Amino acid sequence: MGLKIYKKIIVLGGDGFCGWPTSLHLSSIGHDVVIIDNLSRRNIDNELEAGSLTPIQPMGSRLKAWEEISGQRIRFMKIDVAQDYDALLQVFMNEQPDAIVHFAEQRAAPYSMKSSKTKRYTVNNNINATHNVLCAIVESGLDIHLIHLGTMGVYGYGTAGIKIPEGYLDVEVKAETGERLAQQILYPTNPGSVYHMTKSLDQLLFQYYNKNDHLRITDLHQGIVWGTNTRETMLDERLINRFDYDGDYGTVLNRFLMQAAVGYPITVHGTGGQTRAFIHIQDTVRCIQLALENPPERGDRVLIFNQMTETHKVKDLAKLVSELTGAEIAYVSNPRKEAAENELHVSNDLFLSKGLRPITLNVGLLQEVTEIARKYACRADLSKIPATSTWTKEQRPGNPTEPTVK
Amino acid sequence: MGLKIYKKIIVLGGDGFCGWPTSLHLSSIGHDVVIIDNLSRRNIDNELEAGSLTPIQPMGSRLKAWEEISGQRIRFMKIDVAQDYDALLQVFMNEQPDAIVHFAEQRAAPYSMKSSKTKRYTVNNNINATHNVLCAIVESGLDIHLIHLGTMGVYGYGTAGIKIPEGYLDVEVKAETGERLAQQILYPTNPGSVYHMTKSLDQLLFQYYNKNDHLRITDLHQGIVWGTNTRETMLDERLINRFDYDGDYGTVLNRFLMQAAVGYPITVHGTGGQTRAFIHIQDTVRCIQLALENPPERGDRVLIFNQMTETHKVKDLAKLVSELTGAEIAYVSNPRKEAAENELHVSNDLFLSKGLRPITLNVGLLQEVTEIARKYACRADLSKIPATSTWTKEQRPGNPTEPTVK
Repeated sequence: MGLKIYKKIIVLGGDGFCGWPTSLHLSSIGHDVVIIDNLSRRNIDNELEAGSLTPIQPMGSRLKAWEEISGQRIRFMKIDVAQDYDALLQVFMNEQPDAIVHFAEQRAAPYSMKSSKTKRYTVNNNINATHNVLCAIVESGLDIHLIHLGTMGVYGYGTAGIKIPEGYLDVEVKAETGERLAQQILYPTNPGSVYHMTKSLDQLLFQYYNKNDHLRITDLHQGIVWGTNTRETMLDERLINRFDYDGDYGTVLNRFLMQAAVGYPITVHGTGGQTRAFIHIQDTVRCIQLALENPPERGDRVLIFNQMTETHKVKDLAKLVSELTGAEIAYVSNPRKEAAENELHVSNDLFLSKGLRPITLNVGLLQEVTEIARKYACRADLSKIPATSTWTKEQRPGNPTEPTVK
Repeated sequence: MGLKIYKKIIVLGGDGFCGWPTSLHLSSIGHDVVIIDNLSRRNIDNELEAGSLTPIQPMGSRLKAWEEISGQRIRFMKIDVAQDYDALLQVFMNEQPDAIVHFAEQRAAPYSMKSSKTKRYTVNNNINATHNVLCAIVESGLDIHLIHLGTMGVYGYGTAGIKIPEGYLDVEVKAETGERLAQQILYPTNPGSVYHMTKSLDQLLFQYYNKNDHLRITDLHQGIVWGTNTRETMLDERLINRFDYDGDYGTVLNRFLMQAAVGYPITVHGTGGQTRAFIHIQDTVRCIQLALENPPERGDRVLIFNQMTETHKVKDLAKLVSELTGAEIAYVSNPRKEAAENELHVSNDLFLSKGLRPITLNVGLLQEVTEIARKYACRADLSKIPATSTWTKEQRPGNPTEPTVK
């Protein structure tokens, strides 16, 4: 056993689906964790008249339970990172964190496409949140390692023939002399929603502040997260994690499992030929630990990891869940403007080289999610299941009761 | 003579250094021009305790003078494009413009690097302004051609060996099979300040809204503008254009000419080995006319022009101005973090193909600027000349009275 070094870590957005289990995990391994959150995710639940399938507790109860169970204290400060720069800077100065994990962004593609209001909220919130964090690190003068949750969606899904590298792409460019010059560039982004676009903008913010101010930054391009609980959230029901099943915040595999559990048809958008990258929530928290333990050096460029463990076609997942549960599949209209079918090959060598042993899709874990969904089925509002936010006026909601438009 | 088609055009930021002469020019050729501006440029003058060397008139006097002289009416609405989305959308709905020219961004690199406050203002203002315009065009349902002022600075100045294309770069990427695939990508940006970074972000906003909503967008990557008056602003002193000479908003060639005119040393930052792209303000307004007359079709990708006519090394400009005026040159510290020397080859074939006949550097036009500077020299505050906004704590102000740090 080497020397264990405990760090002071601020988790921005530590009340959310990934932020909460990450905070617990980092606390459980001995780090001093401070959560900053403006509770926007709970407020958006209010706005959408939707909610977590699981009965998540208020932050006060969560933290009290965690202290009882682990003996560890996590502190919480309610700050809007995008709006209240002065408070954010003050916390950095007071706490002198070694690292910041930044989840404080609006993270649902469908919500970001719901209306011009939600498009504008997503851009305004996400860009100002990220930029405020960068400015505050520079102004603090502290050498803080910033870990940011990006998305696989920045690469886009039109990549047939090329294995997606980790952030940087080798290209050749023709010089004026006719000579071919080899260059390594930030992978040209091709986001599929306003939400994904904000993460493409974040990348340029990181690139600039890394160049100008030598900030140490890790950007994690995460796949679609599935599962709900982690080792720590399972320790007590008061620690339970969110489970989003609604058409805006629910993500594909969890939605299928929930739909099957409550007797709703499995809603496949379009043909289901979309190939996407996935990661289990337990691996999310493990990856963030690994990113924290393997920071870039000062002067290094932005370190980009692909935080995913496997790829699947949506229709294959639907079939798997259907076979496991007996639920029927409904092929509905695709509310998104996206390619009906795509291939996807992704490199994730960096996390594997740091010791990640991926949790891949297995019947046991799928059943665990189904059981949670069954346990809390009485809390479900089935009217919230269909995905109704359409990308343009040409798309139709993904509603099993509406006729499919081909 | 072909059929002349007059358009309804909204000029966002029509009170500024480029926006004002553009508005007059478009009005002079018969278009129906509406200016939207929040007067932020004048307010920043107040904040910086600086001002235009030329006595610019309030918008009311400007428009009254224009109507007297040209018989054309330009309307003005004071709206903050970044903040007041509802008002912006309402104007689009009421006016049903054919085109929007978007100058409504904070445009000074040094101001954007002055403090975390100005960094944050620049990002918040510029990104929300551009995004609000895009959202409002989509929400309006109108087929509006958007013309945006970008900057040559998005390309960066580390491009030795490659002639900078107009927005898109041909590259080859190795496929998984080993085969080389030819692709055309948005030129990978390498901005040199927070201001330039915002224009890199703008590019991704345009790319996305063009893809998702088929918006017709022209992005103009403009070089450093020099000169002050155009045919229209010279018609009456009340129409005079801004002339910025201060360390934040003054741009290099105009600053040199003004410095020489008022007996201040010509302040070259560093060695002056920086090569930059230039355009005369008269060509700016002509280019915008050409962009307006050559819109992309619906379904076309974003059309990108390099709006520049020539490149020069800063030290060569200093020598030219010195020879012309007898002024001495002061090599001062470079407050910017940038390469001391660079080469720059730029393609501007697109505007040439549309009929632009470039006004290049000539003694007559340089003297015209010097004469304006001499005429209004009594208005100058010499203490505002040095560039004092430093890119990081490691740079020093470009002050001729301070010792140069090499």
